[in-house]
Amino acid sequence: MPRFSKAVSSLRSSEIRDLMTLASRPDIISFAGGMPGNDLFPVQAIEDLFKALDIKKKRIAFQYGPTPGLPSLLESLSGFLEKKGLPVHTNRLLITTGSQQGLNLLGKAFIDPHDPVLVENPCFIGALSAFRSYDAELRGVPVDRDGIVMEALQQEIDKKEKPKFLYITPYFHNPAGLLYSSERKEQLITALQGRDIPLIEDDAYGDLYFFEEDREQLKPIKAINPEGIEICYTGSFSKILGPGLRLGWMLVPEEIYQKCELIKQSADACSPSFTQVLADEFIRSGQIYSYIATVRQEYKRRANAMVSALKEHLPNYVQWNEPRGGFYLWLTLPEETDATKIVQLAIEGGAVFVIGKTFDPAGTHNNSLRLSYCNNTLEQIAEGIPIVARAIRQVCG
Amino acid sequence: MPRFSKAVSSLRSSEIRDLMTLASRPDIISFAGGMPGNDLFPVQAIEDLFKALDIKKKRIAFQYGPTPGLPSLLESLSGFLEKKGLPVHTNRLLITTGSQQGLNLLGKAFIDPHDPVLVENPCFIGALSAFRSYDAELRGVPVDRDGIVMEALQQEIDKKEKPKFLYITPYFHNPAGLLYSSERKEQLITALQGRDIPLIEDDAYGDLYFFEEDREQLKPIKAINPEGIEICYTGSFSKILGPGLRLGWMLVPEEIYQKCELIKQSADACSPSFTQVLADEFIRSGQIYSYIATVRQEYKRRANAMVSALKEHLPNYVQWNEPRGGFYLWLTLPEETDATKIVQLAIEGGAVFVIGKTFDPAGTHNNSLRLSYCNNTLEQIAEGIPIVARAIRQVCG
Repeated sequence: MPRFSKAVSSLRSSEIRDLMTLASRPDIISFAGGMPGNDLFPVQAIEDLFKALDIKKKRIAFQYGPTPGLPSLLESLSGFLEKKGLPVHTNRLLITTGSQQGLNLLGKAFIDPHDPVLVENPCFIGALSAFRSYDAELRGVPVDRDGIVMEALQQEIDKKEKPKFLYITPYFHNPAGLLYSSERKEQLITALQGRDIPLIEDDAYGDLYFFEEDREQLKPIKAINPEGIEICYTGSFSKILGPGLRLGWMLVPEEIYQKCELIKQSADACSPSFTQVLADEFIRSGQIYSYIATVRQEYKRRANAMVSALKEHLPNYVQWNEPRGGFYLWLTLPEETDATKIVQLAIEGGAVFVIGKTFDPAGTHNNSLRLSYCNNTLEQIAEGIPIVARAIRQVCG
Repeated sequence: MPRFSKAVSSLRSSEIRDLMTLASRPDIISFAGGMPGNDLFPVQAIEDLFKALDIKKKRIAFQYGPTPGLPSLLESLSGFLEKKGLPVHTNRLLITTGSQQGLNLLGKAFIDPHDPVLVENPCFIGALSAFRSYDAELRGVPVDRDGIVMEALQQEIDKKEKPKFLYITPYFHNPAGLLYSSERKEQLITALQGRDIPLIEDDAYGDLYFFEEDREQLKPIKAINPEGIEICYTGSFSKILGPGLRLGWMLVPEEIYQKCELIKQSADACSPSFTQVLADEFIRSGQIYSYIATVRQEYKRRANAMVSALKEHLPNYVQWNEPRGGFYLWLTLPEETDATKIVQLAIEGGAVFVIGKTFDPAGTHNNSLRLSYCNNTLEQIAEGIPIVARAIRQVCG
């Protein structure tokens, strides 16, 4: 009988896996996954770009690369990030095997068992599982429509036992769908300055805005570049090219970069050269910009379809956000509701989604649910939302 | 100033990184890397296989896949491993982001800080860094020409504080180049049976044998499938397709699989779908078998060239193995030698390799060095070995 390490002995089989098995059943309409539309990938573009490479570059795709990433991709990605105003010259860029790995490396860099870590409530499950796997004590801070709730955050910051870092996803939050207001970002900056609590700013969805007018609000805190806060900015090719390439990045201060590079070396030596070469060509050809513009419109169309269906079918005691970008809609049900019952009924009816407690750091709050519209046709949305609405009515009346 | 976790605070910038920077200089002949021959990758075959896929499979390449691996690859890889006699039906197969990730997941599954772990001395540096990153207490057990030294191993096994596992690379050992004898494997099995010490058997190079007559000796301990030992068998596509795909695997008992799947989920969600699709097609087309047969012959040619050059140029007080497969030659110098001086002189002369202490779990023994012939032309070998020999004579006389 193997004796497992303490840090992982508390890891349990996650409900999310069973859910994803359900979600892949052809007879069930899935609003559960956070995966890009299967029909939207730039398949032909990538195939043509690879074919056009000279043999030297093709061989680079098959070979080990440097741990921090292929130099050519680091250069082209720097250009891409510089357009967002990010301080690529005064920080270091590291290519990661998906942004999930970025969160894991940062978790490993900072967390000793039982260390307190601040996260939003609700919070991205990948971040929860990365930090849990190092046995962090997760402290959830609630969010409202404008971002993290400052009073609750201030209380946590002021506690005697200082948290190791604060993790947030300010731009089209997963799962809450919200976009931080500029004012809330400023308050957050003020609260963190000089407190020696690094900020992990996860920007996996920021490119997928539906309204040009939101662009100023989408400016990363990392791009504001405030004094007195160590900001670890993470991003991903998953939503702007394809998650199957497993490529993300972190832009971080030198000292944190040095640790993360060593941790990554021991984690998987380097990110896939094959897909790094493809991502590099996708940026250098300029196709990444036109591609993002296209999928933005398509996700907006899907979001609108879901909003219309929800307006038509949901009872009025359900609260939810109208998405301004990203992949998600977050439904809040009456306080005492148990979303588990709703999802069971919905599955019987032929639709599935993720229940609220999955995103709660404490795993308890369950009067909410996440609907994603990213990988659905308009027809599936029109057919599936009434099933969800019916299940809600059956439980909540 | 960020406060890093205890486990990683001892991680230091590795010499190997500086060495690899040197190794990439065009004016230096590198015998340092463990990378496949750049000119040997099946570039056209992979390009053609991808092009021939239907759109559904191409989209799978861009999308998230299940954490344990794409079902189609798990099936084809099972067939590939079953031909080696491996118990694919009574164990579980997990695709990893390179076999480096496999070692890291196993390290995380088993190691608490200061836990003793048994490794060979010398030992693969990727394993050392993976286990060190969980703050293991590494206990090196010497190897001789036939494998791990049984008396030394037995002493370690009998210690009161039981080691968490034993890690070995029995087939064309990195760096020692040796191939475990069948007798030694039997002795090892007997020593471990019923002792509750899992065995991690790393078989990254076993396919690259130079002599058909060695095939029986190459049978994995996992394929012998002895009672009373939990064996975690790891392998890789890095040497039989390309490391840039970042794909490896582990074949492990159910309970260990369950932990590793959860750890992997938090590490990078899944291995790259893009390269998994390619590897799957490479196996299913049967081209993997003909490709391996081809590179075997090519590496044999390079090994022979290096052996000839060493016979001609090395002083006779240097001991070394004639490789029967794999990538490496291991040179043992007189006891008091410091290989650091030799490599400095060699670099001045225009050649580089890795010094012995890099592979020593304690980081001290340095009267040895590793030469790899895998990524060199015959001309580079003929030109570079005299430089190495000259540096040795300058230091050792």
